[in-house]
Amino acid sequence: MNEIPGPIAPPARLLMGPGPISAYPSVLTAMSAALVGQYDPFMTATMTETQELYRRVWGTSNDATVLIDGTSRAGIEAAMISLIRPGDRVLVPVFGRFGHLLAEIAERAMAEVHTIEVPWGQVFPVSAIEQAILAVKPQLLGLVQGDTSTTMLQPLDEVGALCAKHGVLFYSDATASLGGNPFEADAWGLDAATAGLQKCLGGPSGSAPITLSERAVELIRSRKKIEAGIREEGDEDAADFIRSNYFDLGMILDYWGPRRLNHHTEATSMLYGARECARLLLLEGRDEVIARHRLHGAAMLAGVQGLGLTVFGDLAHKMTNVVAVEIPEGVPGDAARTAMLTDFGIEIGTSFGPLHGRVWRIGTMGYNARTDAVLQTLAALETVLRRFCAPVAANGGVDAAQGIYASAGR
Amino acid sequence: MNEIPGPIAPPARLLMGPGPISAYPSVLTAMSAALVGQYDPFMTATMTETQELYRRVWGTSNDATVLIDGTSRAGIEAAMISLIRPGDRVLVPVFGRFGHLLAEIAERAMAEVHTIEVPWGQVFPVSAIEQAILAVKPQLLGLVQGDTSTTMLQPLDEVGALCAKHGVLFYSDATASLGGNPFEADAWGLDAATAGLQKCLGGPSGSAPITLSERAVELIRSRKKIEAGIREEGDEDAADFIRSNYFDLGMILDYWGPRRLNHHTEATSMLYGARECARLLLLEGRDEVIARHRLHGAAMLAGVQGLGLTVFGDLAHKMTNVVAVEIPEGVPGDAARTAMLTDFGIEIGTSFGPLHGRVWRIGTMGYNARTDAVLQTLAALETVLRRFCAPVAANGGVDAAQGIYASAGR
Repeated sequence: MNEIPGPIAPPARLLMGPGPISAYPSVLTAMSAALVGQYDPFMTATMTETQELYRRVWGTSNDATVLIDGTSRAGIEAAMISLIRPGDRVLVPVFGRFGHLLAEIAERAMAEVHTIEVPWGQVFPVSAIEQAILAVKPQLLGLVQGDTSTTMLQPLDEVGALCAKHGVLFYSDATASLGGNPFEADAWGLDAATAGLQKCLGGPSGSAPITLSERAVELIRSRKKIEAGIREEGDEDAADFIRSNYFDLGMILDYWGPRRLNHHTEATSMLYGARECARLLLLEGRDEVIARHRLHGAAMLAGVQGLGLTVFGDLAHKMTNVVAVEIPEGVPGDAARTAMLTDFGIEIGTSFGPLHGRVWRIGTMGYNARTDAVLQTLAALETVLRRFCAPVAANGGVDAAQGIYASAGR
Repeated sequence: MNEIPGPIAPPARLLMGPGPISAYPSVLTAMSAALVGQYDPFMTATMTETQELYRRVWGTSNDATVLIDGTSRAGIEAAMISLIRPGDRVLVPVFGRFGHLLAEIAERAMAEVHTIEVPWGQVFPVSAIEQAILAVKPQLLGLVQGDTSTTMLQPLDEVGALCAKHGVLFYSDATASLGGNPFEADAWGLDAATAGLQKCLGGPSGSAPITLSERAVELIRSRKKIEAGIREEGDEDAADFIRSNYFDLGMILDYWGPRRLNHHTEATSMLYGARECARLLLLEGRDEVIARHRLHGAAMLAGVQGLGLTVFGDLAHKMTNVVAVEIPEGVPGDAARTAMLTDFGIEIGTSFGPLHGRVWRIGTMGYNARTDAVLQTLAALETVLRRFCAPVAANGGVDAAQGIYASAGR
């Protein structure tokens, strides 16, 4: 390549996969706002304001509520590497791909990792988690709330009390679920929770909201290390310091906090985007956004069933915002997805691991938890399925979805 | 706070500090382009295209040329944690704050860290580096190219041959310098180099370009670990795996490479922005952009000298894109900076460590390496200095800068 390409010009896409999804228009607008300096009063005020917005998103009064500059996985690693001392026992109940990820990141943090598993498509009864806590006696429980790989939503509301009873730190990743399903960081007794913008929050990947309880912050503070270039009198390293500078939450909190101690240079555009995601959510109302995800998720579920597709997993524990459907016998899954994308500009998702080639995943998240997005997807899917000779009732998907909307008075 | 704030509305700012600086307008436009899916053909093509653009920015044919999703410090940590095995000897010549940062990140990676230092405002002769290599016998040399804390530019052109001779991996961070000063990854024998967008590349913080030699990639590949959730037959972990998942460059290369093995969800908006930064640089021409930084940097230097300010550091080794000036006796440094910001909307920088309170740092980078930006800054600074009773020649700064422009035929 010696010529220089033109400005970026993405094709029109309706992103109805498991995420990333199409961002809210005003989030994209916020991404292009002018930059200001790292310690400009407007910048520090925007950081503080964004912290407060995310406290309300998380349902917490945790002072330690910030953004990690990286994708959702950066938030997970920041939480785990800051909370796990090498040799700590970590328990990860695995019910999909992202449980494996938590276990893997704990291994990288040199933990003694214990997993329990249920078949994909199920979640854990709280009794199974307690049994494993009693057997493993972990320092930390890492539990995904919603795992898009299976579409399942793990109930968390009783887990915090369990962890408190047994002296276990309770960490959950809510990347796939936050905003579209209830999450109550304080009421559920979370010590740490992480997310990303690219699912129900309706923003681009690249910023990871995180919140930490006082107990978590205390542990992190005990593992402090300050870089020589900005070390001041009285600063001393813990022997057991965190094995990452970028993800050292103690330093990150000192940067976001009143000391404003220089760490990274905050990713200003991502901050603007993250702020707008939270702002939109709170403007619409936290409960209202969840209700909207529930409605359009129910419409999509009825729609795919109306198309004669079999839904994967335990429907009693499905996230509101994504559904997995078995690819019908005889239909080439990837060719059908390609037809959806190239002919209609609509993206639906493939799958990982044991479900690879077996199911498609269809999301209704953030901006795309909308009637027109749901109906367009179902109408397009009907024609594509029929083209590949699957038996489909005419209007089966759209009619079923509209039935849901009608019964909801919409 | 119970009300919801309005959309983000940053004040007008001319960012003339050491970075972050005002982004190119078309970079901000690119930041707001519509998102596409993670494996959309447009997305993967854009990733591939961006790699090729950055190869030309770095002056390399390295296949392993990608972006790290995080700030420039994320790129540094990815390089160091992936290349340093616990117990490795790492040599860091420190000539400013960011040398300390490299040493600190190497410590976090459990290296045996050796530093040599010169006083702030100087750089290392290559003989001093060779002497230290002979004494320490490091596995890796970590050397900042440009350290904004001192404005110095360390010559790198002979260091690669030295490292090759002694079997040392050669890593440099060029965050502060890339784009505004020559950098030749291949010709200078770099094994790894990292940068950020928020300096001469004229973009927002949040994406870290990185390039790796084949030798570096080989080392990284030997430390492979694949997460269970996407493990396939034949994948096996190295005992000596990299102690981070997010910064495991082997996994990141498999995601950017033809395998497209799922790792993080690429930060699409940051990718668009990073692409536009490189595109603009190559459109204008790599040498032409450096010449522009050299011209406007010279004008700013002459300008501050024309205002009677004393310049800090060894001018023979100053970066083109930033100058440090001593705060005149009797002038309150922070109050003057505040006046520049609140009265004129112009940001100039404070300093770290031994220079804290002693110098201001003034940058001419990326979009702001422009005549009007330079002259506005000098005119405003003249009035502010005079307000604080510093002796300043009328028009001293602007006239001196215009002299530089005139002699350059501009």
